[in-house]
Amino acid sequence: MSGEAKSARTQVKRKPSRGVYDQEQIHAILDEALTSTVGFVENDQPFAVPTVHGRLGESLYFHGSPANRTLNTLASGSPCCITAALVDGIVLGRTAKKHSLNYRAVMVLGVAREVTDKDEKIAGLVAIIEHMIPGRIKDVGPPDENELASTLLISMNIAEASAKVRTGDPTDPPSSLELPVWAGQLPLRVASDVPIPDPALDRETTTPDYLLDWSRPERR
Amino acid sequence: MSGEAKSARTQVKRKPSRGVYDQEQIHAILDEALTSTVGFVENDQPFAVPTVHGRLGESLYFHGSPANRTLNTLASGSPCCITAALVDGIVLGRTAKKHSLNYRAVMVLGVAREVTDKDEKIAGLVAIIEHMIPGRIKDVGPPDENELASTLLISMNIAEASAKVRTGDPTDPPSSLELPVWAGQLPLRVASDVPIPDPALDRETTTPDYLLDWSRPERR
Repeated sequence: MSGEAKSARTQVKRKPSRGVYDQEQIHAILDEALTSTVGFVENDQPFAVPTVHGRLGESLYFHGSPANRTLNTLASGSPCCITAALVDGIVLGRTAKKHSLNYRAVMVLGVAREVTDKDEKIAGLVAIIEHMIPGRIKDVGPPDENELASTLLISMNIAEASAKVRTGDPTDPPSSLELPVWAGQLPLRVASDVPIPDPALDRETTTPDYLLDWSRPERR
Repeated sequence: MSGEAKSARTQVKRKPSRGVYDQEQIHAILDEALTSTVGFVENDQPFAVPTVHGRLGESLYFHGSPANRTLNTLASGSPCCITAALVDGIVLGRTAKKHSLNYRAVMVLGVAREVTDKDEKIAGLVAIIEHMIPGRIKDVGPPDENELASTLLISMNIAEASAKVRTGDPTDPPSSLELPVWAGQLPLRVASDVPIPDPALDRETTTPDYLLDWSRPERR
């Protein structure tokens, strides 16, 4: 276990050795994960809704239409859970039971708020685009007045968060090691393919380097 | 819109043109998605927990330790939400607002149950392994008595489900088309790398074809 949980609710109970509470690792997982899932409750029914996020310091940002149900529930102060998960590989043990995944997942609990301050709203929306495609914002510029007016931006503090991480080989017991079965890991990653230009794009517009170089995690 | 939702709760309200209620498409998305997220509520706090699933017909299966909190909450008959999302690409419009993702996501609502019937339990656990690595089970065999006794298996019916899908180019308005900015799509996919053998593996054990050929969606 790395450090201590900030609350009993985010303490990793099953397999506590997989628990990580280090802020830097939590940020790195949130930044590498292109998407996250928002958990919330409406009329006693839980929902888990995939979304894209951005991060600035200890704040996560989510955007959408002012009519977006998920974002409106979050803006109302309803408790929520933000989860981001990276699948790093499939773990193959020598018996059925010893199959697993290598992963890095972050869970953030708390209450979100609507962002109404104009400067923060611009910064949050820019953070979401730069999260998806680092380097993009210099080409398209920040959101304009029309976009600010027609977008709902939600912020969630990363105060109450934990990560759970599994890495490495299968954990077969010594009694299984002689079984004549391949065992190990199949590494997985998110790959990008050749960018597809919009049909209306001027043929002289070259493909930007930030698309040709796109990778998760970002190459430094 | 393709077909009709099976309930008001799974009717896609925002951007209804992205709603899909066709059973075959819903199954295909669930099968291609390696992982899913389980949404549930505990003490008024919503949680979204990543997991791996398997599917047989109209049943989704999830497994874990008998002490697993998420699975126990599901087994207790608490309402839940299963979401599986595939990110197919990043959509780059000519202004900040017109950035989006191409995706296929399924949401299943309902109440789960614990699987206690031995035959169904074996079939469900096999389905989860075959979901992760098609072709694997012939090498490792089905779960043994020890695994059956030490594993909690949960089943969820796919009756109340919907999908939401976005495909294609950005939707820039005509007034943006002259902007000197690259626009289009960056396709994304899950890629597998060279399998990493367990250090204790006999060097003569060859890497199985189902790992060398692993892909999502499965090649037929």
